Amino acid sequence: MDAPTTDRHTYTGADCLVESLLGAGIDVCFANPGTSEMHFVGGLDRSDGMRCVLCLYEGVATGAADGYARMTRRPAATLLHLGPGLANGLSNLHNARRAASPVVNIVGDHASYHLDLDSPLTTDIDAVAAPFSAWVGRCTTPEGIPAITAEAVAAALTRPGGVATMILPGEVSWSATDTRPGGTVAVTAPKVDEAAVAAAADVLRGDGPNLVLLAGDALLADGLAIAGRIAAATGADLLAPTHCPRIDRGAGRVPVLRIPYPVDQALPVLAKYRHVILVGGKEPVAFFAYPDKPGRLLPEGCAITRLAGNDHDLADALARLADAVGAGNATLPLAVHEPAAAPRGPLNPDTIAGVLAANIPEDAIIADESITTGRAFFQATPRTPRHTWLPGASGSLGIGMAMAAGAAIASPGRRVISLEADGSAMYAPQALWTQARENLDVTTVIFANRGYQILKGEMKATGYGEPGRKARDMLEIDRPALDFVSLAKGMGVEGARAETAEALDDLMKQSLKRPGPFLIEAVL
Amino acid sequence: MDAPTTDRHTYTGADCLVESLLGAGIDVCFANPGTSEMHFVGGLDRSDGMRCVLCLYEGVATGAADGYARMTRRPAATLLHLGPGLANGLSNLHNARRAASPVVNIVGDHASYHLDLDSPLTTDIDAVAAPFSAWVGRCTTPEGIPAITAEAVAAALTRPGGVATMILPGEVSWSATDTRPGGTVAVTAPKVDEAAVAAAADVLRGDGPNLVLLAGDALLADGLAIAGRIAAATGADLLAPTHCPRIDRGAGRVPVLRIPYPVDQALPVLAKYRHVILVGGKEPVAFFAYPDKPGRLLPEGCAITRLAGNDHDLADALARLADAVGAGNATLPLAVHEPAAAPRGPLNPDTIAGVLAANIPEDAIIADESITTGRAFFQATPRTPRHTWLPGASGSLGIGMAMAAGAAIASPGRRVISLEADGSAMYAPQALWTQARENLDVTTVIFANRGYQILKGEMKATGYGEPGRKARDMLEIDRPALDFVSLAKGMGVEGARAETAEALDDLMKQSLKRPGPFLIEAVL
Repeated sequence: MDAPTTDRHTYTGADCLVESLLGAGIDVCFANPGTSEMHFVGGLDRSDGMRCVLCLYEGVATGAADGYARMTRRPAATLLHLGPGLANGLSNLHNARRAASPVVNIVGDHASYHLDLDSPLTTDIDAVAAPFSAWVGRCTTPEGIPAITAEAVAAALTRPGGVATMILPGEVSWSATDTRPGGTVAVTAPKVDEAAVAAAADVLRGDGPNLVLLAGDALLADGLAIAGRIAAATGADLLAPTHCPRIDRGAGRVPVLRIPYPVDQALPVLAKYRHVILVGGKEPVAFFAYPDKPGRLLPEGCAITRLAGNDHDLADALARLADAVGAGNATLPLAVHEPAAAPRGPLNPDTIAGVLAANIPEDAIIADESITTGRAFFQATPRTPRHTWLPGASGSLGIGMAMAAGAAIASPGRRVISLEADGSAMYAPQALWTQARENLDVTTVIFANRGYQILKGEMKATGYGEPGRKARDMLEIDRPALDFVSLAKGMGVEGARAETAEALDDLMKQSLKRPGPFLIEAVL
Repeated sequence: MDAPTTDRHTYTGADCLVESLLGAGIDVCFANPGTSEMHFVGGLDRSDGMRCVLCLYEGVATGAADGYARMTRRPAATLLHLGPGLANGLSNLHNARRAASPVVNIVGDHASYHLDLDSPLTTDIDAVAAPFSAWVGRCTTPEGIPAITAEAVAAALTRPGGVATMILPGEVSWSATDTRPGGTVAVTAPKVDEAAVAAAADVLRGDGPNLVLLAGDALLADGLAIAGRIAAATGADLLAPTHCPRIDRGAGRVPVLRIPYPVDQALPVLAKYRHVILVGGKEPVAFFAYPDKPGRLLPEGCAITRLAGNDHDLADALARLADAVGAGNATLPLAVHEPAAAPRGPLNPDTIAGVLAANIPEDAIIADESITTGRAFFQATPRTPRHTWLPGASGSLGIGMAMAAGAAIASPGRRVISLEADGSAMYAPQALWTQARENLDVTTVIFANRGYQILKGEMKATGYGEPGRKARDMLEIDRPALDFVSLAKGMGVEGARAETAEALDDLMKQSLKRPGPFLIEAVL
């Protein structure tokens, strides 16, 4: 223990890990490293292929990895520092988990022999990671790195996709090794069996009204196109869950609506169905329990038939179902772009939706954490150029702007529009700095209603009546009012405030024309 | 399930919980509630005694609870929303755990019967909480609330103090109940046995050099006063750990230094000792493992004698040790306030320390997350008016400004000086908003060296040599430069930039004279 075991010319476990990741096709790393990860940073430094994206807060790293995976369907790596760094990333790993996004989540740990000393940052990282991970593994030797990396990447890629947490102890990272990296990792999604296809086809040939509930990859363009043919042939309706990772939509796509979030609105939408076919996903349930509302949203007696689980190849299942029901080339009417002028006047959810509909550029990506203000944005924007919508996947707040950053890195040349509520923006505002650092083409619109608007509604729904001062203090964030233009400036993102629909329209048009990030605070 | 079971006039489980907390002496709640906590918010609204402090991010709530507990030695409550909300609070719960701060950490959960539906925000909250909690309990009926609240508070208060996580399912919170709250909760710290006192006294009567290593409550004014008499009588030295929750110091107090953070500096400080007496705390160990450095910091052959563990009454143990060694009233020389003019010239760690020493007001609280810039601030400020220093307790970043908020709420009339590094500030900047909301007397000084300075040193220490572009990108946060004055403005806190020692001195003097928060960005 008298001299460093490595210098810049030594090939270490860290080098082997970086190269193993590259070999497996992972070439982006969202990082917030600490001391125990310095050798890994050395490995990144020496590598040619890895794009390293620094995040000032771990939730930005994990949220960006989710956004990246939603667009590419491939994992990015994260790099987090010990248990507390991992802890800061967990809420967006929860989103990634619910979005079924593949993520290879690398967490540095103390050297193994140091753990018994219980130094101040020591935690049980395996236990911290477990509730949010599909797979947790620990590298124990540099020689084992190629195999465990392959295992982690395979776990992340196994349908529907998940969070694979790989723990990297210091001495594994810094030790010299002769081991060389592994190669590609291939994962094939299992196909559904014939009986499932036949059962679903039987339902669709029978009496309706029938609903095909599309989830996961079934909501990407290819899956939707097949679903549109099935619907045209059988008269079944199509719907998407309230929360889902991604929907391809706009001109030329089969339009699909999402089940409304409020229980009282979801129930009438679903009330008529006698049969539901699940294509990935699960039976729709209420987001929260309420004393006076049901948890299950399907009507009594509605039969559920599972065509495929999230772990299946959904496009294959849909294609075979289309064949089984004899679907031809006829499809549901595809969405058409109908340009409309942006509305003028005061800002409210309707006028904002109108401005958005007038401005979505072709191939845009909409990262949506707009919560109450944006509740109707999705259904108000079908007649727009083709684009991709990234809704909240679990409702854990603080993903929007990080997801936007990850989606932008995944999709060069596509403009990202990040729709963000003021309350949820404040869970991870540091994402703006990464947007500036990487000069990402992200237009952020903050909806400043200066309250936890969703909670005001929920508080009313409890039957509590008019909240008193203390309750209002928990529901309103107007004292002091947040100034998002200053916040953005503090993190290197230019911004401006809009107080009318025409101002918002004007700022959006300006922003969409120029590269790099821009923030608009839309004051309601 | 046809009508709400409660209205604003119904006494619910939530009311019983709020009143049980008040009965147990908990009258501050740092909250970031969600839908599942709306009935608890109703309970807070109806209560007279509870101060509710809204935080825009859960890490601010838990960090503030830690700061509050370090000053009062009593728990505050937190209120967090489900597993993802808890997740955002974990890294500062880790700090609280390492600081042995009592915290009653209340986490809302879905109604129990809703969990099986696995709605999107569902997590295993017990598992998420466990690695960071001394105690985890789940309320299962409204009738059980008084007993489980008493259990949680007792767990939080049991020496040395800890995080008690209490999970509150929706239906327990909203159900009507006839149960009425419990009363006070008393916890007595066990006293060490005579043999431990005698053994420590034997060591101190024998050959030296001997070290008394003070931890936990032994570093509060009363404990230090006794330790000063022991040291004077026996010739033993006194030291504090690098990381500890609180040290009372300045004029009239027994001065005590902390073991330096860098291993290379800690080793020579400890090299001479033949015996170490532990008063709370543990054997000093290296914060991180390094390939070429020891993990244990005491010299070979140094004997360790434990006077008391963290779970004992440390002041009692010290008093009995003082008696056993025949300590009289003589004490180590007490610190004296020697006013000095603030230095002038460029800002660097030395001039900043000088400005700080010239400005610490009597009874100030120093919340210290200044990392590399502030590494020498503590030893540079002994000849100041009496004050309290709150160091990092575990090194998990993002506690500083939240801890400052909690300390300010705990200590009306005492000015808090929050020393914060630019890197660590960005893990939980939302604390500034709570400082503005509550108009807290906090002067924040951000040390803007625009890099993860600590990591630059650590990277060098790996033997890697000069980092390349990618490594530098992981270590430098200057592109874009953060503008903390704008960030603070965005959250309602006035601020200004200082680029010289005289400007910093001037801004500190202005800020210390006026109520409410102020932020100074000190550009190095």
